Amino acid sequence: MRNIKLIIEYDGTNYAGWQRQNNAVAIQQKVEEAIKCVTGSFSEVIGSSRTDSGVHARGFVCNFYTESKIPSLSFKKALNNFLPEDIVIINSEDVENEFHSRYHSTGKKYVYTIVTGTERSAIGRNYVYYFYRKLDIQKMQDGARYFLGTHDFSAFKKTGSSVKTSVRTIKDLQIKQKEKTIEFSIVGDGFLYNMVRIIVGTLLEVGVGRFTPEYIVQIIDSKDRSKAGKPVPARGLCLEEVYY
Amino acid sequence: MRNIKLIIEYDGTNYAGWQRQNNAVAIQQKVEEAIKCVTGSFSEVIGSSRTDSGVHARGFVCNFYTESKIPSLSFKKALNNFLPEDIVIINSEDVENEFHSRYHSTGKKYVYTIVTGTERSAIGRNYVYYFYRKLDIQKMQDGARYFLGTHDFSAFKKTGSSVKTSVRTIKDLQIKQKEKTIEFSIVGDGFLYNMVRIIVGTLLEVGVGRFTPEYIVQIIDSKDRSKAGKPVPARGLCLEEVYY
Repeated sequence: MRNIKLIIEYDGTNYAGWQRQNNAVAIQQKVEEAIKCVTGSFSEVIGSSRTDSGVHARGFVCNFYTESKIPSLSFKKALNNFLPEDIVIINSEDVENEFHSRYHSTGKKYVYTIVTGTERSAIGRNYVYYFYRKLDIQKMQDGARYFLGTHDFSAFKKTGSSVKTSVRTIKDLQIKQKEKTIEFSIVGDGFLYNMVRIIVGTLLEVGVGRFTPEYIVQIIDSKDRSKAGKPVPARGLCLEEVYY
Repeated sequence: MRNIKLIIEYDGTNYAGWQRQNNAVAIQQKVEEAIKCVTGSFSEVIGSSRTDSGVHARGFVCNFYTESKIPSLSFKKALNNFLPEDIVIINSEDVENEFHSRYHSTGKKYVYTIVTGTERSAIGRNYVYYFYRKLDIQKMQDGARYFLGTHDFSAFKKTGSSVKTSVRTIKDLQIKQKEKTIEFSIVGDGFLYNMVRIIVGTLLEVGVGRFTPEYIVQIIDSKDRSKAGKPVPARGLCLEEVYY
């Protein structure tokens, strides 16, 4: 049995997220359908994470087992023939049988993109969040520092989501501005449900002056979801890379 | 009676172009529906051009007559409330009664965007044309010079399109490369049906070495559509500005 690792780019706009569902079309389903077309038999695809509806990926990783004799690199081209235009295989390779795209991941990088100074725009609207109010970038950068390191992020996970532990390590959090575009780039060993979107939403509260940068410490310590900001919309979020 | 001029940005992906049609949804129809919601009565909207299905605009201009008492600038906000998220009014103003967005236009600027080195990509796919083959930018720039000036562009219009004259003046044609992205920016007093897309398609033939730059002169002189290149796909095209 072979274990094939795929790197996938997708536009999440028209999907109910990565994970296969009964009543909506998910990216996992599309990839599994393409694999069945190529290999002739069903393989369950193991994803590195469960991105939400509307969230995009440039470097999503997944793996699947197959008896197919197709050369590793040919999977890329063959699968792309059967995938819709909003899902693209970037790379395909054989990996050791033990490799598990979720369990073996050591970290992930997400980028969240905001365009300021406008309420909405038509072109490219599915990839950014339009934010009309003025933002103090320096204050957001000051606030971002407090997220770095290992913390219990209970205040930054969607209420009701159950996980063994809410402790995660943020390794890097950069905020860069280029003209009207602000990019939040965040690297961590793992993220709780809605965690990136709540972190960005909280930093926006710092940016508009409703929270001081130092208040981030109190929010983290409180472990109280109601203290942090609202999650920003899914469309601005993109999973850039999964580390192993 | 007032005459209101609008500047519109739209993502043409989900529309059958600007012009109202019987069996498909056009941008004109959406704008007219929004005007009816705002003013209470139907106004026909006069567009500056008929963009094709899939073509986008950042600065489309149109005008309409109304008896409404709404202040000029308020039209922008009011119409945006009734427009879908892929159509946005950028500006609204009162203009003299004689103003006609098509007849009075003195020129237009279109931009065509190509991404090289990949067959396809998922994110942003509706705004660019992916071109895998290597392109010689210098040769395309050399070829572009021959389009400048006033010519009979019969070789660069869709077969069967009937117009009084095929003579048009190209005022500027720039080709700029930034990493993998190549932008063709073209300014003219007016364009024939499919003319921009056929010009770009012909320059791509120069870029891959199938045509010499000088061969453009022969194509123009031939007035023969079969001599020029294929039209590039609509999705890479955007109407940037209409001049008056």
